[in-house]
Amino acid sequence: MGAVHPLLTDTTPLPEGLDARLRDQLTFVIEVDRLKTILRQSPLAAADRRENDAEHSWHLALMVVLLAEHSDEPIDVGHTVKLVLVHDLVEIYAGDTPLYDAEAAHTQQAREEAAADRLFGLLPPDQAREVRALWDEFEARSTPEARFAKAMDRLQPLLLNWMARGGTWKSPGVTADTVRSRKAVIGDASTALWEAGRTLIDEGERRGWSRPSLS
Amino acid sequence: MGAVHPLLTDTTPLPEGLDARLRDQLTFVIEVDRLKTILRQSPLAAADRRENDAEHSWHLALMVVLLAEHSDEPIDVGHTVKLVLVHDLVEIYAGDTPLYDAEAAHTQQAREEAAADRLFGLLPPDQAREVRALWDEFEARSTPEARFAKAMDRLQPLLLNWMARGGTWKSPGVTADTVRSRKAVIGDASTALWEAGRTLIDEGERRGWSRPSLS
Ligand SMILES: [Ca+2]
Repeated sequence: MGAVHPLLTDTTPLPEGLDARLRDQLTFVIEVDRLKTILRQSPLAAADRRENDAEHSWHLALMVVLLAEHSDEPIDVGHTVKLVLVHDLVEIYAGDTPLYDAEAAHTQQAREEAAADRLFGLLPPDQAREVRALWDEFEARSTPEARFAKAMDRLQPLLLNWMARGGTWKSPGVTADTVRSRKAVIGDASTALWEAGRTLIDEGERRGWSRPSLS
Repeated sequence: MGAVHPLLTDTTPLPEGLDARLRDQLTFVIEVDRLKTILRQSPLAAADRRENDAEHSWHLALMVVLLAEHSDEPIDVGHTVKLVLVHDLVEIYAGDTPLYDAEAAHTQQAREEAAADRLFGLLPPDQAREVRALWDEFEARSTPEARFAKAMDRLQPLLLNWMARGGTWKSPGVTADTVRSRKAVIGDASTALWEAGRTLIDEGERRGWSRPSLS
């Protein structure tokens, strides 16, 4: 997880006189401001820069609310939103692992586990366990809510790549088939959204926005 | 609401062959990418730049999850999260209205109503009504959920101003009493959070991070 940073509140400590539990909660709330500085590979549709994890997480949360009807299984929308709100928090200390970077993926789990221990440990113990459980659920994809959250996490950059007429589809070594195989988990949550996703990938390949599949 | 922009998907239309309802939903999902470009006055704690509305909305949503226990009235966390996810969407076309800018506040309602009609109108009618109802509920503050959502909207920049050792507390014409009066709505939702908020404002004034109140 790289160098150990001081907490943001180490530079400007919260004042005396706060309730101890609330102080821990606010320390965490301030520390996660760092999510706004973690850059992803995806280009924004609305501006000429890359997206950060906080923007991405907000986008996924709104997508859950608007697209939940397309889940093949019934899902609890509020719970699914919680999963996407916290799903990238560990990147605050572990960094973003690009979807098409196999090398970084190799060390990803260990880096993210250490980051989770450190970051969630700032919270009161009951909430540290709650947030950790949300993150574990998202990662394990063993519930309909986690599968739908993961589908949003794969569909949103697909939309941004479409708008960028390629975006990270043009990463070294990536073909349209690579994209198809990395995005197929959308179909574990929603037949309709995966059909739409495939339409975008297929049409993108046809237009030369991704490298043609080797066939 | 200023000049009429084309939709983002006017520049790169979604492909043929999508289900009509899903096409409208994805058009909206892509259009709201613009929220990431709407800058607020608040400085980030984690980087030397101003915050944007998408980052802010994510931060509020996570705060709802973590701080809901401090609501004086029972609240539905999932519903409160929905309120904060959509509460700033109208600023995509209406722009941000700084908390301490009385002139902009004067025209704010008309600008935001027009923006809501245009933006939410991209959605299928049932969802346009649903999102509009969420926005109206947030604005009216007539439910415990809306009051708590509003409290987060006021508490979050207060934390960022604390971390900036002043931030927008140093805006022209603003004194510590201005800050107190603009933040007092936190107390409509949570005695505990307003007590903490006042502790930060009082200590900030004591340290000279805001102008002393006229007394
Ligand atoms: Ca706001």
